[in-house]
Amino acid sequence: MDHDFVRREEPRLLNELIEFLSIPSISTGTAHVADCRRAAQWLVDQLFHLGCPTVQLIEGDGHPVVWGESPAVPGAPTLLIYGHYDVQPVEPLDEWHSPPFTPSVRDGKLYARGAIDDKGQVFALLKAYEASRDSEGNPPINVRFLFEGEEECGGRVVFDLLAAEPERTQVDAVIVADMSYYAPGWPAVYTALRGLCYAELHVRTLQRDLHSGSYGGVAPNAIETICRMLMDLKSASGKIRVPKLYKSVEAPTKAEKKGWASLPFDEEEYLRDEVTAKALTGLEDYSIFERTWALPTFEIHGIRGGFVGEGAKTVIPAAATAKISMRLVPGLTVEFARKQLEKAIAKVAPDYADWEIVFHHGGDPVQVDVTHEAFRTLDRAFEEVVGRPTVAVRAGGSIPIVPELARGGAPVLLTGIGLPDDGLHSPNEKVDLQQVWDGIRVFGRFFEMLGGK
Amino acid sequence: MDHDFVRREEPRLLNELIEFLSIPSISTGTAHVADCRRAAQWLVDQLFHLGCPTVQLIEGDGHPVVWGESPAVPGAPTLLIYGHYDVQPVEPLDEWHSPPFTPSVRDGKLYARGAIDDKGQVFALLKAYEASRDSEGNPPINVRFLFEGEEECGGRVVFDLLAAEPERTQVDAVIVADMSYYAPGWPAVYTALRGLCYAELHVRTLQRDLHSGSYGGVAPNAIETICRMLMDLKSASGKIRVPKLYKSVEAPTKAEKKGWASLPFDEEEYLRDEVTAKALTGLEDYSIFERTWALPTFEIHGIRGGFVGEGAKTVIPAAATAKISMRLVPGLTVEFARKQLEKAIAKVAPDYADWEIVFHHGGDPVQVDVTHEAFRTLDRAFEEVVGRPTVAVRAGGSIPIVPELARGGAPVLLTGIGLPDDGLHSPNEKVDLQQVWDGIRVFGRFFEMLGGK
Repeated sequence: MDHDFVRREEPRLLNELIEFLSIPSISTGTAHVADCRRAAQWLVDQLFHLGCPTVQLIEGDGHPVVWGESPAVPGAPTLLIYGHYDVQPVEPLDEWHSPPFTPSVRDGKLYARGAIDDKGQVFALLKAYEASRDSEGNPPINVRFLFEGEEECGGRVVFDLLAAEPERTQVDAVIVADMSYYAPGWPAVYTALRGLCYAELHVRTLQRDLHSGSYGGVAPNAIETICRMLMDLKSASGKIRVPKLYKSVEAPTKAEKKGWASLPFDEEEYLRDEVTAKALTGLEDYSIFERTWALPTFEIHGIRGGFVGEGAKTVIPAAATAKISMRLVPGLTVEFARKQLEKAIAKVAPDYADWEIVFHHGGDPVQVDVTHEAFRTLDRAFEEVVGRPTVAVRAGGSIPIVPELARGGAPVLLTGIGLPDDGLHSPNEKVDLQQVWDGIRVFGRFFEMLGGK
Repeated sequence: MDHDFVRREEPRLLNELIEFLSIPSISTGTAHVADCRRAAQWLVDQLFHLGCPTVQLIEGDGHPVVWGESPAVPGAPTLLIYGHYDVQPVEPLDEWHSPPFTPSVRDGKLYARGAIDDKGQVFALLKAYEASRDSEGNPPINVRFLFEGEEECGGRVVFDLLAAEPERTQVDAVIVADMSYYAPGWPAVYTALRGLCYAELHVRTLQRDLHSGSYGGVAPNAIETICRMLMDLKSASGKIRVPKLYKSVEAPTKAEKKGWASLPFDEEEYLRDEVTAKALTGLEDYSIFERTWALPTFEIHGIRGGFVGEGAKTVIPAAATAKISMRLVPGLTVEFARKQLEKAIAKVAPDYADWEIVFHHGGDPVQVDVTHEAFRTLDRAFEEVVGRPTVAVRAGGSIPIVPELARGGAPVLLTGIGLPDDGLHSPNEKVDLQQVWDGIRVFGRFFEMLGGK
């Protein structure tokens, strides 16, 4: 590997990353369809630049998938790299210190929507491949690049592709670099991801909004009704009131919990710098790792109803809507969660309310066996570049594609270069540039080691 | 009175009313400041047309007040007419069958924002004055017209005016035609109005929105927090949990309750046609009249938090806001309600939440003594035109200006031409045109009878 690559190319690399991050490839909604395509095209250009003889822009019912195959290296193992070029919406916009699609470097960090989730990570992998080629330009392994544009919106294009052409995942290893270090200086691999069951709950109590003077005291208020339903679905102490939920959860093993207990963790710092709250909430009998990694959640992501404009309007609202989700842990499936959540809502809904639940995308929880040799190779690469092998942790988030990537039987390395305070999905999302430069070196060495160098 | 006036002038009258209703004089917010002024100017023109020698457009810190004095009739009593030219916002717009400011006649009803609240009523009074002049154009009484543009937004211009110039309310009677019949065919006068305490509650639990995968299970969710606070302020059975609230309420008299019991009332019809709900809610031990007229309320008018755009975003929201109000009955004051509500919120707010309550406009509840002779005169006018005198009822709504209008010592006749299903503050607000034509006749005769004719 060209160990001088990053130092020498840094200005160009930074410019390219800024170019990628400047594309507002928000995949939810329809406002940025063309921008998603621009981001896909940017990747296509990168893959051609890397010398890939096969580059495909694969269309489907949504944003396209980008596929690339590196020059063949007979006898060398084949690695599938997965990432996504789409990003989350940017609201609330007024909380950004610099515009989300005008990447801004401050104090060694690059601020932009998608900086870490997932463009910065995709970028590190692309450039690692570039760095890992020898002086004649020959790569150490066979790489398949798979970048989708619907990770944040739950689209089906990549799922349809892998279902129709499962041979694409017939590889020796898969790397999904959409994750974070456990802590600064502590690279990680992930043994489990939570799944996701996302829905919109619509409640109507009246055919029309009413005057609160005339009817206040007798007319059912839709906001009050939806608030009470939501509160009935979760106790103040954080217990989710969905039948058979906790009973179905597979608890983490003793070994796993022991490993977690040995991780460095400063609760005060976590609360202040990451959660940015005055106190933590949730099930007190469980550790923070258990609450965020090994237990299901019920969250309200958005709520709207009645008059929310400027000023005062004395209306009894007829309808209200909430966006809600449950995170799922091993033992639970999306199908089960949907069924049980619907039952729970039917139970808490008052007779006078009409309600409907519309389920969005979802994903089952994931468990990964990290005993495969490829994990040791990754450990060696991290150790060489950043001085420490990975720790095995879990993640609270969801990547629904992971089970599909594992279908070919290859180990799935869930890892990445993020840091816990990167603020993914939040205003002022950032990537630490040193993490990008280190990431290029780590992944470059990983490619070489995988190829036996 | 020119008894043929309405029949003869109907096409012109309808055109004029449509013209008035076409002005989108929404007083909340700042988008319609110029439209409010246009509505005020429309009234100024009407008053000149009626021959008023004194017409004033009175400026203040908000929308202007329109004042007019009819040609003096020495020895005749003086009546102060109060109304408002501003209207409520029109959201949700998509529920209107015709645009709110494109008045549309369907089946004898005129649909538009402000049709009954209050432009249609103001119009009936103006035209009643026109109709009551004799063939030489001489009016039967002295009339003072007072029309404000901030009834729906709680502005202070008219309050400031009457505080500075209390002599404007030195009259023999005041009529506030901003009310409804008790039922079709049953004109009414009102013995009490509920007061109003309106506020915005802001809650923050995090410094920034968080990813629900990473932090779901430990991070306090602002929407969950505000929902739980709101639910803790009111029980599922409708009891408001604000300290000392019910203890302070003055119960209606036995005579009053007896009068209410004799009113025609079909609960099934009320539920279906007016409330448009599957069931009534609220304190079961109290009658519907008591719940809507004689008990305080706690309503959520609007709520907003988190991601409410198209699609899915898995965010733990940092902040949420709700618009809330309490209706107040005799025994309660705005000052008391604010103090007690703030105490109640402090009690239900969890330690980890930052919150703020911002109070909007408000008004104390009102009680009116309906034994004055002017009420009998009004009864005679209604009896002559629509065949029935008024019934004495209460109203659940609030008109904060009423105590100010009563300061001169004159009886305040709270009456009007609305019908219970007019949908004021709702989409498809309407006025029954026959009620307008009848109203012109009733008020015209009332003016004459008050003048001794």
